[in-house]
Amino acid sequence: MLKANLLNFTTLYRFGTPFETDAVTLDKKSLNFTETEQLPFFSFEKNDTIFTLKFQLNEEDRIYGLGQTLGGLNKRGKRYKLYATDDPLHTPEKESLYGSHPFLIVNNKFGLFIDYPSEIIFDIGFTKHDIMEITIPSNNFDLYIFNSQNNIEIIKEYLKLTGTPYIPPKWAFGYQQCRWSYPDAKTIKEVAENFRKKEIPCDAIYMDIDYMKDFKVFTIDENKFPDFDKFMKEMKEKGFKLVPIVDPGVKIEKGYDVYEEGKEKGYFCKDKDGKDFVATVWPGFTHFPDFLNPEVRKWWGRKYKLFTDLGIYSFWNDMNEPSIFFVPDALKKYLKEINEMLNKEIGLEFFGIKDGINALSNKREYYSEFYHNTPYGKFSNEELHNLYGYYMAKATVEGFNELIPDKRYLLLSRSSYAGHHRIATIWMGDNMSWWEHMLVNIRMLLSLNMAGFFYTGADIGGFGSNASPELVIRWMQLGVFSPLYRNHSALGTRHQEPWAFDENIENIMKKIIEFRYALIPYLYSEFFNSIEELTPFISPLFLHYNDDETSFEIEDQFMVGKSLMAAPIIQPNAKGRFVYLPENKWLYWKVSDFKERNVEVLNPGTHYIKAGLNEIPVFIKENSLIVLNEEKLNYVDEKATEEIIVIGFVTDKAEFIYFEDDGESFAFKEGNYAKIKITVIKNKNGYDFEVEKDESEKFETSLKRIKFEIYNENNEKVVFTLSL
Amino acid sequence: MLKANLLNFTTLYRFGTPFETDAVTLDKKSLNFTETEQLPFFSFEKNDTIFTLKFQLNEEDRIYGLGQTLGGLNKRGKRYKLYATDDPLHTPEKESLYGSHPFLIVNNKFGLFIDYPSEIIFDIGFTKHDIMEITIPSNNFDLYIFNSQNNIEIIKEYLKLTGTPYIPPKWAFGYQQCRWSYPDAKTIKEVAENFRKKEIPCDAIYMDIDYMKDFKVFTIDENKFPDFDKFMKEMKEKGFKLVPIVDPGVKIEKGYDVYEEGKEKGYFCKDKDGKDFVATVWPGFTHFPDFLNPEVRKWWGRKYKLFTDLGIYSFWNDMNEPSIFFVPDALKKYLKEINEMLNKEIGLEFFGIKDGINALSNKREYYSEFYHNTPYGKFSNEELHNLYGYYMAKATVEGFNELIPDKRYLLLSRSSYAGHHRIATIWMGDNMSWWEHMLVNIRMLLSLNMAGFFYTGADIGGFGSNASPELVIRWMQLGVFSPLYRNHSALGTRHQEPWAFDENIENIMKKIIEFRYALIPYLYSEFFNSIEELTPFISPLFLHYNDDETSFEIEDQFMVGKSLMAAPIIQPNAKGRFVYLPENKWLYWKVSDFKERNVEVLNPGTHYIKAGLNEIPVFIKENSLIVLNEEKLNYVDEKATEEIIVIGFVTDKAEFIYFEDDGESFAFKEGNYAKIKITVIKNKNGYDFEVEKDESEKFETSLKRIKFEIYNENNEKVVFTLSL
Repeated sequence: MLKANLLNFTTLYRFGTPFETDAVTLDKKSLNFTETEQLPFFSFEKNDTIFTLKFQLNEEDRIYGLGQTLGGLNKRGKRYKLYATDDPLHTPEKESLYGSHPFLIVNNKFGLFIDYPSEIIFDIGFTKHDIMEITIPSNNFDLYIFNSQNNIEIIKEYLKLTGTPYIPPKWAFGYQQCRWSYPDAKTIKEVAENFRKKEIPCDAIYMDIDYMKDFKVFTIDENKFPDFDKFMKEMKEKGFKLVPIVDPGVKIEKGYDVYEEGKEKGYFCKDKDGKDFVATVWPGFTHFPDFLNPEVRKWWGRKYKLFTDLGIYSFWNDMNEPSIFFVPDALKKYLKEINEMLNKEIGLEFFGIKDGINALSNKREYYSEFYHNTPYGKFSNEELHNLYGYYMAKATVEGFNELIPDKRYLLLSRSSYAGHHRIATIWMGDNMSWWEHMLVNIRMLLSLNMAGFFYTGADIGGFGSNASPELVIRWMQLGVFSPLYRNHSALGTRHQEPWAFDENIENIMKKIIEFRYALIPYLYSEFFNSIEELTPFISPLFLHYNDDETSFEIEDQFMVGKSLMAAPIIQPNAKGRFVYLPENKWLYWKVSDFKERNVEVLNPGTHYIKAGLNEIPVFIKENSLIVLNEEKLNYVDEKATEEIIVIGFVTDKAEFIYFEDDGESFAFKEGNYAKIKITVIKNKNGYDFEVEKDESEKFETSLKRIKFEIYNENNEKVVFTLSL
Repeated sequence: MLKANLLNFTTLYRFGTPFETDAVTLDKKSLNFTETEQLPFFSFEKNDTIFTLKFQLNEEDRIYGLGQTLGGLNKRGKRYKLYATDDPLHTPEKESLYGSHPFLIVNNKFGLFIDYPSEIIFDIGFTKHDIMEITIPSNNFDLYIFNSQNNIEIIKEYLKLTGTPYIPPKWAFGYQQCRWSYPDAKTIKEVAENFRKKEIPCDAIYMDIDYMKDFKVFTIDENKFPDFDKFMKEMKEKGFKLVPIVDPGVKIEKGYDVYEEGKEKGYFCKDKDGKDFVATVWPGFTHFPDFLNPEVRKWWGRKYKLFTDLGIYSFWNDMNEPSIFFVPDALKKYLKEINEMLNKEIGLEFFGIKDGINALSNKREYYSEFYHNTPYGKFSNEELHNLYGYYMAKATVEGFNELIPDKRYLLLSRSSYAGHHRIATIWMGDNMSWWEHMLVNIRMLLSLNMAGFFYTGADIGGFGSNASPELVIRWMQLGVFSPLYRNHSALGTRHQEPWAFDENIENIMKKIIEFRYALIPYLYSEFFNSIEELTPFISPLFLHYNDDETSFEIEDQFMVGKSLMAAPIIQPNAKGRFVYLPENKWLYWKVSDFKERNVEVLNPGTHYIKAGLNEIPVFIKENSLIVLNEEKLNYVDEKATEEIIVIGFVTDKAEFIYFEDDGESFAFKEGNYAKIKITVIKNKNGYDFEVEKDESEKFETSLKRIKFEIYNENNEKVVFTLSL
């Protein structure tokens, strides 16, 4: 193997001839490779087709990372198979989800990233309690070892390697309503009108697969959307963004332009005989565009003109593992076998029949049966499997770069690979309306943030199965702290819109969403601060408090930015919960109506705090500030923010950097932003308040006033207003 | 409707002409019924085929009960469909499990029991947050309302109505090893020898379906068990009980005696044409014995002679919902439909094909297609569906009454109805090796105890899917406090025996099981005390501490008897957990080796306690005692207990009733037991120790010595030995 040092404390170990995945942005050509036989931390075994890394775990070793996976925040005790899979039942034993993010941290020891685009198995103390075994079915991959004992430094280094996280438009921090499906203009308008009439803030409404004509990508069903331009205009006037779904499978249908062009130009993945590979997905028989081919990406990216011309810059890419319901030949074979059994007596053979058909969806063999034509040669999908979702997003983003170079876009994908966080983001896939999935949401949000997906979220309220009103409320409360705040539910399940239950529930939901909008100045500022510092926006306690073991164990409390800790209620019927407050004092704010500051100072340690169904537990860290916008907004960009209120818990000194830009372009990159440093210092008689603008800024802030509401350790409040 | 008062505060409301289910032991003929139009607490609607009860919930209302159901300990926020169903995937949204126990408590208000043998739907604040709606698809049922505000009194009254809980033999408190399957004598012997060689205590080994010849009930495969009598003797000598499985489905096979007799005598359930109903289960095509017919029960019960003659008094009845893989005609119809699609182009019709075969198992329609011949007339299974498991157990117990009238038996069933707890018990069915299922285990253990199933348990380590060593250890630790302590795992999953992992894990498991055996004097005594007082043996905090809201919220701590609180670790990678200590001080004992008393006095309130992988958190209540047997045992009845050690946390006065009998007969009913009252009273200088035997006892205790180890509030220990 070869070895090269890079960045601050990273070593790249190169095995064989790895495929160039696009995960790493750093120029690898300039590296000085030397031969080596040694690996730090690991013992390893290799043969022609398989490579195994082994690491001896001590009882106190904790493993963090792996992005979008199930299991604890501490990944130990489970086996993970990083192989993009559309599995809609996220039960705890599942090893594969939609993406692959082979980056992890061994707490206090080191970090690693394996750049390899097909299946990698991480058995982390599952088979053997004290062994982490990583299996790569290849001898061609890049292994990066981050030789640092500092978790935050390791994450920074990973992000230097793979790129600065993607930044969505500001409105994407607003509330977003989704449903499979609001199938037509009429329904979407009703939903939109409901939000405005009820004065529940909302920024976006999603369009699931039914907006298309026969599920054909880049079409809009004219029966359902008779005058789409006009409809779009109306929606825009009301402040709504539309978010259409885009699936990769192109319907095989004579005369359908996307199909005809793709076929003619050879843009689809081929089978072993060079024919266009056929898989069945929503549109029926389809072909898969070969996004690993730059020419195909260019073609695909330009298709978005249909939407960008209408002012639509927000999309979600689904089914891009790619998911395959079945391959027609495989189904035919199965049905023939069944047919032969027709006249036999069938006993326990029944299970074979049943398992046979259930196994036809996303069968592993399919992925060896179609090929990509890449700049580096021809590869089966199996060999590069985990890249399909990323390259589909890349096709989209390359299109945007041409079509809307000045516009920030919202782009969610279901499947992803390491580095995807640089150009777009993901949502967490098809979860369920289970209380248990709120904890999964938190764990994954933290793990994905560590992998660079700062802006992400789960389907609030749960996608599959029916939700109770209480579950939706508690999940909406958790969602306040989720960068992507999207409520989504599946066909055939109970509706989950704020008004889907009764008036009392609706009022609670409205207050929750209002709190989220009030928090946006804080969230948006801290998001940019996180990007600048390359440290997770939403983060586990242990990244901040690593002197106490307990901070490493807590999986259901987390930091949102640097000043605020969330401890959502995620148990049914609970009107309270345990919290662990590390190190300093905290200001406990039980939010039902964000304008009422029902606060209490709590000492560090263990508490059982009460929080009724309409109350959100929020903790403000000692000597820190948050900022709120108290003005009523129907959507994020409705009005410029002229006044913010700074709420602080200050026993000594606290600082906050308020960030502002146009919220929709990349002009911030040229310094077109405002940064305002707000400082509160305790003095003998009260507080000193300082506000300092960044002199270099080219962007004029809309802020006119800053109000302060500062609490001391005795829960005494000082208020002060400062005009700019 | 009719109304009659009974017991202390119970009113029976009779609607129409209910089927006599056997749930209630009280003589209902002597009741004085009067006409009424009114129901307390409820509004109701009825039409010809459906009856709906509605109760308005306040935000603070909590609902407990419903026996074997998923959902929280507080049953609010979920919909439950009590209809016996073999569903092996206990995901949170599931509404039906294996049994029906329609008894619940509205905290601080009242209790109710609906005696109706088919589906009842409880929608408890699920559809509407503030409504509990109970739907009974019939106008013939008995509704009992327990008009008391005292939860324990309501439970007592329910048990007076439905009978004193079943008492297993003493050995059943020992550790039990199960696996699907130890298929033959050789394997079972190896397992048995492993336990003895490694000196890991164990009392029972289970025999799953593979011991039978072709899955035929009441057969033993002679190839697998060449000399069963000799094998049994060997097992007995080693102190092992064997526990064979018994399924209801009788294989259709010419010459097979059970089939031939049943067919000849008309003992099987009939279809609508009067022919024996055919269903497919493990043996292939089978008939179901009609256990609702007393003559059939007599026949079936006598079949157990095969086993009782060999000294086997322990069994588990499985598949008795009854589970139906498919009905041959339904499969044929499905396959024909599929066959017709063979030459068509299949797109999304695929899902119909897939759903079609998956729906063939346990299809609801099947249960309307076969009939029972009961003393009250002919009924479809649908009408009496939830009784099948109970009546199968009743057949078994009626057989035991004839065959082994003096022997206490272990009888587990998968399906059950209210009242089943009187004659036998259940295990919790096919759970999974999921951390989440440890919480399900606890919630169900508490709910089942409230429904009279004092002796019950879940499959330790989880039945389905693969377990990590850590999960099995943590679950084995939880199991110490589970009356039924059975480790079980499914075909094709990872083994879970104490030695299935590595030596370190095995040593930890051994210490855990040793602790369980040491605790048996406490468990056995408290079990009998619970039976005598008709109060749950394993109970939620709120039954003891109802002055503080928090005690009602805690679902993962529970009382084991009256002196001991368990707070097991049920999160992966946790080396500690939050605990809430109500009202008094508690002695925290972190058990790794039970002979080492690593104790600490904790104040009431909230704590984060540490407990490493090998440590079990145990809390002894202030002013109470537990008793341990420190002698090494390979199995419960190996040696008579001559010495116990009383461990107490006494700041004032504590009492304990030690119970002893022969452990295997019903002689205790005639006073053949020893009851020893142990009292520890704090005085100025130390403690007074009193031991008082029940003078009326006819049974001579084996106890010769009682050692005391008493802690005060300063964690100071006093030891004392008393000879009897």
